[in-house]
Amino acid sequence: MPAQKLKDFSKLCIHTITTKPWDIETAVKKYAAAGVKGITIWRQWLEGRDLRQTRKMIHDEGLEVVSLCRGGFFPAKTTGGRQEAIDENKRAIEEAHQIGAPLIVLVCGAVPGQPLEDSRKQIQDGISALLDEARDANVKLAIEPLHPMYADDRSAINTLKQANDLCETLNDPAVGVAVDVYHLWWDPDLQREIQRCGKADNLLAFHICDWRTPTVDLLNDRGLMGEGCINIREIRGWVEDAGFSGFNEVEIFSNRWWGADQDEFLQEIKRAYLKNA
Amino acid sequence: MPAQKLKDFSKLCIHTITTKPWDIETAVKKYAAAGVKGITIWRQWLEGRDLRQTRKMIHDEGLEVVSLCRGGFFPAKTTGGRQEAIDENKRAIEEAHQIGAPLIVLVCGAVPGQPLEDSRKQIQDGISALLDEARDANVKLAIEPLHPMYADDRSAINTLKQANDLCETLNDPAVGVAVDVYHLWWDPDLQREIQRCGKADNLLAFHICDWRTPTVDLLNDRGLMGEGCINIREIRGWVEDAGFSGFNEVEIFSNRWWGADQDEFLQEIKRAYLKNA
Repeated sequence: MPAQKLKDFSKLCIHTITTKPWDIETAVKKYAAAGVKGITIWRQWLEGRDLRQTRKMIHDEGLEVVSLCRGGFFPAKTTGGRQEAIDENKRAIEEAHQIGAPLIVLVCGAVPGQPLEDSRKQIQDGISALLDEARDANVKLAIEPLHPMYADDRSAINTLKQANDLCETLNDPAVGVAVDVYHLWWDPDLQREIQRCGKADNLLAFHICDWRTPTVDLLNDRGLMGEGCINIREIRGWVEDAGFSGFNEVEIFSNRWWGADQDEFLQEIKRAYLKNA
Repeated sequence: MPAQKLKDFSKLCIHTITTKPWDIETAVKKYAAAGVKGITIWRQWLEGRDLRQTRKMIHDEGLEVVSLCRGGFFPAKTTGGRQEAIDENKRAIEEAHQIGAPLIVLVCGAVPGQPLEDSRKQIQDGISALLDEARDANVKLAIEPLHPMYADDRSAINTLKQANDLCETLNDPAVGVAVDVYHLWWDPDLQREIQRCGKADNLLAFHICDWRTPTVDLLNDRGLMGEGCINIREIRGWVEDAGFSGFNEVEIFSNRWWGADQDEFLQEIKRAYLKNA
């Protein structure tokens, strides 16, 4: 059964990159004033900021930090490169801990021309190397399977089945999965793999946006919910049936929307959230 | 084991759309003069042509017609729309018969916003409705699974597993599969599904090109073999191990290459074919 329409904004989270023109202070104030309850922070938004102060500001505005984006990018051609990635991820875990984010989203990485099998092994090794730090910091790591069109240089994990397999292999409570409708909507096994993910207690995050026809840019032409063809509400139903009760995170990379008035965009997000998510 | 390097052009086929600026007469003459042995004809290249005469010209130049591109696009919102698609595919079968093409490549279709499950059912029904004509005309139908980035409006069949499933359900000698590295290279199940496809005698065609990083256009930014990250030779090895001994069809949609001198491009194709395919 498709989920019920959403009736309020108690589960609405927005990624800072969705309103890219706004810095963290602006985003927090605007989201809070609009009644948005959650924020997922992209790391660039924290550069040069005092994390303790930023955390306090977010808390004072009544927002919950849902996750930190993003860790990952484990594969590299050299051992040194892979170690750098692990070190960078450890810094991300420390940042998540300081900003109060319970979760880091992992875009796992890929190296053009390197066999995907090798990248997948390096991803597994990279995540393994972070488990102690993640547990100590009380920060979870969410493997986000990315659309196959990003298999060249962004992620060698391209289906929920692969993410589930990897999670179950790692078998650590610090590791789970982020389900993003943009990356996964086309997959004939999606419903089954969402059920599997929930049953294994690995379903940690749910991201929404839409797939536009035509899509004119591989990265930055995502649609607002309702602007495309994704069965968002049906997928949300599957996710909720699988036991997920967290935030619905609006993550839209869009040159078009970034070029619009962001206050109006925020209102459009709220409208689209109730109507189409 | 990866396949051996190709040593000659006896299995080289080029799609007319690869050298889009050339009409059919030019393409046939240029391919033949370059030692290319096979040609896959896109239907637009036959518009306004006398098929018998064109067939004779191709034969006289010593080229083999490998396939006709393309049939398919079965899903539609209305019964009338679906019947139109079937009728159009019957015309394609008749054209293939007349031009001497043993095979039609099916881009199966999808309707933005229509559930993929519905489109898949309509695809199955559409192909079923063509089987008698295909058998009578001695023309095979090759389901081509398309990259998931085309699931919105080009094909609801996005993995080789889905194509194999559909073939085995239809269970008719007139139906098989076209494997295109561009659409399938990212799939962790690819080798296994190629084996399955060959074992079922369903592997009818093999298309090659490359995936560029970055890819700047979802449709028309394919690379020449070697310009991207696809393990083409390894996949060719899998295809050959699965019993395929047909042509290696170069199918490149590329605004960049279409803008280049096509004679030079043809030489580049030959170089890339020996070096990277």
